[in-house]
Amino acid sequence: MELHRISNEQRKRITSLSQKKNRVELKKFIVEGHKMASEVLEYRPENCYLIYCTEQYLEKFPLQHDKLHVVSAKDLERISQLKNPQGILMVVDFLDKEKNAQDFYIALDAVQDPGNFGTILRMADWYGVKTILCSKDCVDVYNSKVVQASMGAIFRVGVNYVDLNLEIEKLNLPVFGALLEGENIYSQELLPKGILLMGNEGNGISEELQKKVSHKLTIPRIGASESLNVSMATGIMLSEFFRSSLK
Amino acid sequence: MELHRISNEQRKRITSLSQKKNRVELKKFIVEGHKMASEVLEYRPENCYLIYCTEQYLEKFPLQHDKLHVVSAKDLERISQLKNPQGILMVVDFLDKEKNAQDFYIALDAVQDPGNFGTILRMADWYGVKTILCSKDCVDVYNSKVVQASMGAIFRVGVNYVDLNLEIEKLNLPVFGALLEGENIYSQELLPKGILLMGNEGNGISEELQKKVSHKLTIPRIGASESLNVSMATGIMLSEFFRSSLK
Repeated sequence: MELHRISNEQRKRITSLSQKKNRVELKKFIVEGHKMASEVLEYRPENCYLIYCTEQYLEKFPLQHDKLHVVSAKDLERISQLKNPQGILMVVDFLDKEKNAQDFYIALDAVQDPGNFGTILRMADWYGVKTILCSKDCVDVYNSKVVQASMGAIFRVGVNYVDLNLEIEKLNLPVFGALLEGENIYSQELLPKGILLMGNEGNGISEELQKKVSHKLTIPRIGASESLNVSMATGIMLSEFFRSSLK
Repeated sequence: MELHRISNEQRKRITSLSQKKNRVELKKFIVEGHKMASEVLEYRPENCYLIYCTEQYLEKFPLQHDKLHVVSAKDLERISQLKNPQGILMVVDFLDKEKNAQDFYIALDAVQDPGNFGTILRMADWYGVKTILCSKDCVDVYNSKVVQASMGAIFRVGVNYVDLNLEIEKLNLPVFGALLEGENIYSQELLPKGILLMGNEGNGISEELQKKVSHKLTIPRIGASESLNVSMATGIMLSEFFRSSLK
């Protein structure tokens, strides 16, 4: 099979996508590995802009696609953001935002850790949450670590970066804030109608946004652990919001 | 202040603790950073074997201790397992196992990912679970990534590596297994009495152990996500087991 040679210019353009400012300019991001590439082709085929894969990958996972370029393992390594490239790399157009009004939103205030954000995306996807609202200082959803940690959830859950203050006012829904001194989540009758607001890993919900919280919620603890991380807390809270409708 | 010089021999002994076989031989493991070191001194002071820290660390966090050696930043870097050493490194004796009988256990079958295991330890700590039973092919609790991800929970939650088959038989408690084709957790009346058995990240609970499961449980989903990872699933299940006693 004849291999496509990746020119220096192409390589630079692709590797530049590891930085947010270049992603925003080109409106494109990188997806790597068989699982994630398959999710793009299944859930967002129209967003696939370019596919690079190796011959070895194709032998294992046959694929025909007009955007496909077969490259050498060496060339793939040069454009990959992974220590161990996974045989396939895709350049993907930015995803559309979900614009339909929803009954239930997750809102994230300055969540910074890509792993946490990816995990929250997975949890949201599990419980069928359609939209996550992010303050503008949250980690970028197209950060490669977020993309990988989401395990494909980013192709099904819309993420909108907004001024949370304004957006929460506009939506005019009850706001459930995860706070240390809130009501015990287990003694509430929670239903998936409203906004679940989760705060930054170290500082929680900002003072300004706390004013918007109509229901303060806390996961009570038995042991001595100081804190749950924000993704675990989000998972447990989502479980409480959805449990009665899933019975 | 006069600095302690770390000899080559000492350095080799300390860095050898990055490998399980050496930890097992010396019955010691490494803890790094202010938060984790403080947890040792608070919860397991008798297990502190050696402390190395820099002058800069001491200026920020004054500490007097007969096991303390002040070393240069360069020396600390040489013994650290972190890319960015945190100013303090402690050599800690293996922790005692919790031997008292409990009403509720978490049992892990071949959980391999250090981050998952650390997160499960945190969740267990939050809900006051005293003991985690691990199959012998689970990741080592003294692996530095597990230690760090546990955020101190390893000093409060006992971890016993056992033959899970034998141990489960011996305990003679109901066994709740997290399986894909189980009963909806939200329609059960779950109480924290028994063993919550969680399986390997890729393969779930092994066939042999599945025979020991008396109650199959599943977290129902609404969305299209293929799976929750084992730590998220453990968190949501623990929440269900403990919610009625925490109301």
